[in-house]
Amino acid sequence: MFYSQMNKEQLLNEKKSLDKQYAELLKKELKLDMSRGKPDTAQLDLSTDLLAVIKTEKDCYTEKGVDVRNYGVVDGISEAKKLFAELLDVNEDNVIVGGCSSLNIMYDEITRAMMFGVVGGKKPWGAQGKIKFLCPVPGYDRHFAICELMGIEMINIPMKKDGPDMDMVERLVSEDDSIKGIWCVPKYSNPDGCVYSDKTVMRFAFLKPKAPDFRIFWDNAYAVHDLYGEIKIANLLKSAAENGNENMPLIFTSTSKISFAGAGLSAMAASKANIEKTKKSLGIQTIGFDKINQLRHVKYFKNADGIREHMKKHAALLRPKFETVLNAFNTHLKPLGISEWSEPKGGYFISLSITAGSAKRVYQLAKDAGVTLTPAGAPFPYGIDPEDKILRIAPSYPTIPELSAAVDILCLCVKMSAVESYLNK
Amino acid sequence: MFYSQMNKEQLLNEKKSLDKQYAELLKKELKLDMSRGKPDTAQLDLSTDLLAVIKTEKDCYTEKGVDVRNYGVVDGISEAKKLFAELLDVNEDNVIVGGCSSLNIMYDEITRAMMFGVVGGKKPWGAQGKIKFLCPVPGYDRHFAICELMGIEMINIPMKKDGPDMDMVERLVSEDDSIKGIWCVPKYSNPDGCVYSDKTVMRFAFLKPKAPDFRIFWDNAYAVHDLYGEIKIANLLKSAAENGNENMPLIFTSTSKISFAGAGLSAMAASKANIEKTKKSLGIQTIGFDKINQLRHVKYFKNADGIREHMKKHAALLRPKFETVLNAFNTHLKPLGISEWSEPKGGYFISLSITAGSAKRVYQLAKDAGVTLTPAGAPFPYGIDPEDKILRIAPSYPTIPELSAAVDILCLCVKMSAVESYLNK
Repeated sequence: MFYSQMNKEQLLNEKKSLDKQYAELLKKELKLDMSRGKPDTAQLDLSTDLLAVIKTEKDCYTEKGVDVRNYGVVDGISEAKKLFAELLDVNEDNVIVGGCSSLNIMYDEITRAMMFGVVGGKKPWGAQGKIKFLCPVPGYDRHFAICELMGIEMINIPMKKDGPDMDMVERLVSEDDSIKGIWCVPKYSNPDGCVYSDKTVMRFAFLKPKAPDFRIFWDNAYAVHDLYGEIKIANLLKSAAENGNENMPLIFTSTSKISFAGAGLSAMAASKANIEKTKKSLGIQTIGFDKINQLRHVKYFKNADGIREHMKKHAALLRPKFETVLNAFNTHLKPLGISEWSEPKGGYFISLSITAGSAKRVYQLAKDAGVTLTPAGAPFPYGIDPEDKILRIAPSYPTIPELSAAVDILCLCVKMSAVESYLNK
Repeated sequence: MFYSQMNKEQLLNEKKSLDKQYAELLKKELKLDMSRGKPDTAQLDLSTDLLAVIKTEKDCYTEKGVDVRNYGVVDGISEAKKLFAELLDVNEDNVIVGGCSSLNIMYDEITRAMMFGVVGGKKPWGAQGKIKFLCPVPGYDRHFAICELMGIEMINIPMKKDGPDMDMVERLVSEDDSIKGIWCVPKYSNPDGCVYSDKTVMRFAFLKPKAPDFRIFWDNAYAVHDLYGEIKIANLLKSAAENGNENMPLIFTSTSKISFAGAGLSAMAASKANIEKTKKSLGIQTIGFDKINQLRHVKYFKNADGIREHMKKHAALLRPKFETVLNAFNTHLKPLGISEWSEPKGGYFISLSITAGSAKRVYQLAKDAGVTLTPAGAPFPYGIDPEDKILRIAPSYPTIPELSAAVDILCLCVKMSAVESYLNK
């Protein structure tokens, strides 16, 4: 029976039962963590052979004869550029390979835009007074944290089934030239697992922003992170170029959830003009990124197909975890009509949408019962969920028994807060 | 006989002889490179065993149980902090360990200062109109390139035998609060190999800058790069703290010329307040630096003594190269009284001071004869050597026969330009 159909007495009985279950739980002093989108140990073990794929002096040379142990090649060795080019379906000379954090190369791009401006811009972003970014929500907290640090005002854009609300995006960017960018995770977006439709990607490619220095930050973090077979998204860089918008997209990706979260490779793909501008200041910023690690990855994965094969092993480990969560939601929440959730076909997160005004309450109830969730509000700019209703679920790190226990508790807490809010109506 | 003592006829005869030697040289179509401060292959081979010191899953855990393959620990694993703390004689909690480029962490510190300001500052550097840096000259071109990119005005400070002209430094920083920093390479400075005396370091520790947000960028790149036994410099961070200047120094170092130039570790040491402020934005900037590589270095070198032992092997390879250059200068240039040069006891460079107005000419003559030198002017802000007389010699990368050939040609070119300038007087 849906909670919405219960009368007060039924709700009070339900509350009593839930409270009792919760009281039992508290006695167990559990310590479970569903807060972080981290690969688990078994996933990291998949890449063990990468560790020592470079063992001797002879292993240290690229095809072109570059000694990867020494200085030079600030934009990445050719083999690594090729690997990412193949993965992202762009040309090698549209790619820069960075260090182990794609977040860092996004941060650097924004920093450069703030201080020096971008191709086609008249002034640095930082010299144009208040500037703004569009933020599809729910989204990735670390994207929003960069904007907040830089003092860039963030505007929420609702996520729909096939990507951000493009009517709103088109209208806002065409009207307001203080809007300089938008954050997108186009495939298995964090946290709702949405895959942008081809139509959405094409609308991005066709955008006519008022600001000549507007940029799409296209964080393709989960480009090959499919759980049920490969899903392809449309190629933004190519489509944008065909529509005279070649300098608009900045594409980012990494191997953080392919090889090692703490020691992978990151890459940026963009128009040649963007790449040249970035390379110019990159050559002043750094002596170069770790080329031994670049060559390690190339020797180990060989090519994009090698990565795709490897990702099937990740999928085999992750799939049952996602299913554990979704099954629990179907079992415990669906019959009560109190929540909605995404059913991602890849990526690292599930978004749970509960009764408005309940997310913080559920976070706290779960915490008190020993289950750490991502803080309510985290998937929104400034940490503020306007409706206080979205929770980000990260199933990857706990074991399945831990996850199963944690999600049962989460469901209990969702039920408790739902009953409370019906009783308070 | 000194050129200065020759009459016109003697000079003309000398010119004829030098021109003939040069003409012979041109026929050889040589290709030699003395331009880059890069370790040679034999030096890189010294660290081969570092490559595969982490081979299996079991090798991937820190003392504290952190899995270095996964996310987390943005400021570096404890073991790596300890290693650098020992090397720099500071406490572990005064250290952040970065990626493979110390230049990048210096650039990041300046970027953060420009955008967000520093501890004790009232405004970001970038919001204070024109700001300035003091630049001891000759110095490191990549330091100056950062200032130029950021639009920071550079003021030349002459280098003396025991460090920068401290009278000038003290006077300028006490008078002008738009001076926000100074670049220092305190040990075996690039390119003259100068070691700052204890007195110089103490004068830095005692500085009373007018700007509350003044910083000393102390690039201790050659902290353990001794060629003839260990030389110690005074501890700036400790002395500054004792004098109420604890937030003034920012110390940088790296293993680029200890392990691998293209895949080492970098570190920053500073006051706790500085470290905390940096960590705060670092946590937004990046997901973390490569912790596997941090652990690799710790497992391989063990401790500071391990590094010091390793550096003796580098010294054994580098010493004969430095001596090849210095012997050639003594043989070819000393008898003519036309040049002065530094005789570094460590580091990577030798500074050659020739007849004023000749450095560009010598660079070009050498280039035409197939010897690539660091461009004249490079060791100065904006690439401008006011007297056009300093050449930076980098002996590390060529083999000894190549180096010997190259330095002989360099000496010939120095003689040619010297004769020319005496004839033009």
